[in-house]
Amino acid sequence: MKSETKNQRIVLASRPVGAPVAANFRLEEVAITEPAEGEVLVKVHYLSLDPYMRRRMDDRASYAPPVALGAVMVGGTVGEVLESRHAEFKAGDFVEGMGGWQSHAILKGEGLRKINPADAPISTALGILGMPGMTAYTGLLTIGKPQAGETLVVAAASGAVGAAVGQIAKLKGCRVVGIAGGPAKTRYLTEQLGFDAAIDHHAEDLPQALAAVCPKGIDIYFENVGGKIFKAVLPLLNPFARMPVCGLISHANETSLPEGPDGVPDLFRAVLTKKLTIRGFIVHDFADQAPAFRKDMQDWIRQEKIRYREDIVEGLAQAPDAFIGLLQGRNFGKLLVHIAA
Amino acid sequence: MKSETKNQRIVLASRPVGAPVAANFRLEEVAITEPAEGEVLVKVHYLSLDPYMRRRMDDRASYAPPVALGAVMVGGTVGEVLESRHAEFKAGDFVEGMGGWQSHAILKGEGLRKINPADAPISTALGILGMPGMTAYTGLLTIGKPQAGETLVVAAASGAVGAAVGQIAKLKGCRVVGIAGGPAKTRYLTEQLGFDAAIDHHAEDLPQALAAVCPKGIDIYFENVGGKIFKAVLPLLNPFARMPVCGLISHANETSLPEGPDGVPDLFRAVLTKKLTIRGFIVHDFADQAPAFRKDMQDWIRQEKIRYREDIVEGLAQAPDAFIGLLQGRNFGKLLVHIAA
Repeated sequence: MKSETKNQRIVLASRPVGAPVAANFRLEEVAITEPAEGEVLVKVHYLSLDPYMRRRMDDRASYAPPVALGAVMVGGTVGEVLESRHAEFKAGDFVEGMGGWQSHAILKGEGLRKINPADAPISTALGILGMPGMTAYTGLLTIGKPQAGETLVVAAASGAVGAAVGQIAKLKGCRVVGIAGGPAKTRYLTEQLGFDAAIDHHAEDLPQALAAVCPKGIDIYFENVGGKIFKAVLPLLNPFARMPVCGLISHANETSLPEGPDGVPDLFRAVLTKKLTIRGFIVHDFADQAPAFRKDMQDWIRQEKIRYREDIVEGLAQAPDAFIGLLQGRNFGKLLVHIAA
Repeated sequence: MKSETKNQRIVLASRPVGAPVAANFRLEEVAITEPAEGEVLVKVHYLSLDPYMRRRMDDRASYAPPVALGAVMVGGTVGEVLESRHAEFKAGDFVEGMGGWQSHAILKGEGLRKINPADAPISTALGILGMPGMTAYTGLLTIGKPQAGETLVVAAASGAVGAAVGQIAKLKGCRVVGIAGGPAKTRYLTEQLGFDAAIDHHAEDLPQALAAVCPKGIDIYFENVGGKIFKAVLPLLNPFARMPVCGLISHANETSLPEGPDGVPDLFRAVLTKKLTIRGFIVHDFADQAPAFRKDMQDWIRQEKIRYREDIVEGLAQAPDAFIGLLQGRNFGKLLVHIAA
């Protein structure tokens, strides 16, 4: 019974300076409240952990306002409707929405998407069939514009977005090179996902190693990471190369600008002389592509043309540690928290 | 008579280290040779001096190979055909082409465009109706995508490209802010060209001055300059702002990377969180737009919707000093060398 159950939630206890630590989070138990008119009460089954959450912990402008101190950490969730005061939802429905880091969420009906557990495991609504999959699909196709025979490089390549980017680019006829951390991940890229080559970003000679597997240069660099990987990519970019900028996880925990020299003039010289296109985006910019994405991606999964991998952590209390690990590259596949009954 | 006349030409004597100096150029007199089959001999009337020439003096890859030591400096010209061995041209025709820094040029017919001196002064084929005008038109319309009510900023705004960019943006309904060096140029922008505001880049408080005239932020920054002007622009860019990258004249003479900190991570953070588009281009990328450009620009000039200003230097021998001055912002309007008979 709901009345005997508490809502377990994780709130932002303090803002991190640099890398987040456990003390930035606080687990609380509070009473479950009633949905108001137009709202539903959702029992969360899965919480998605994603790099963008790091920015929301800072008190500075980004896509969206920061999480307030003491407020529930923001996050995408899938769960089951327990009570509905919105005409489109009824108890027992499964829904995806921004439930946050908690076991029970009160959400406005407008922000929810009904999902059918018969179509695919409900967790995929947070991964390959959800925000990360659609981020890969829209950023790659709309900004990257892959053409058969071109070379694509993606870093964080075994992650939720990167793995989808590389596999879609393969379907479009590209040579695909992934960059990931450690031999298990690089083997996964070439042996399981069909990437043409994979480089360990720990390699001492990263620029040379990358150049060796990109003999015809790089036409598309899907940017998830920044930092030393971007530096290795830049000299290899071909004229008219495209760079969808999706994330910068290597800079997530930086508290000051890196030491010089200032690379901005060299970057702009490359933009100018190579006629590069660099474009930042978030998935919401391409909301109108959602139906095309869902159709294509469901087809590709059904036809086994695209695979996905989930890294599932058990219990809400583990979320902070799992999130800290995400920023260090500790996860292997789409990171989810399963929130026990 | 041709046989009594010599070809005066300026060759690259040595490569500059930093800013070019007079000793990097050498004036020579050589015999005029005969055009081969498919070529024409052109008597040059005007030579265009443009910032891109600085890159061609360096021994490093750019759009095009460097000028070889001892070779004639590259440059656009208009002139009169003296002798033709190409079916499309005859003596007396006026043509625009890449004649270089010399009084007489032998050119392949394929690279030439016939111009009609009755349509407009022939010098405009190197300015508002030529490469700089088309650079402004294509970069602004194709990459900048100006919308009525948006704010556009352009630096080097009294120059050949910048003045056209600002005036076309005004025709499209934008608020237009120009940045230029000194009160004569900034007055010219607002009083003669109809810019909404103009800022002197020598201003101590450039970032504040720019912010004050861009109360609704910046939607399009047409990049001709780089350096401190870009730094002042970046914080003012609005979400989804576009940045056509046309030139980087402030970095033209740099011999090493500027001191740190490294601004690249901050730049990418802005690209990501503001969903910016940065795209480098050269006018040749949009060659298919030449007919649309010529029609529109000729109409605009005829209707006095667009004005242009030329800064004409007399005599080929003055070209090196004028070019050195161009890189310092000494010219006021499209810089041309009139090559005396």
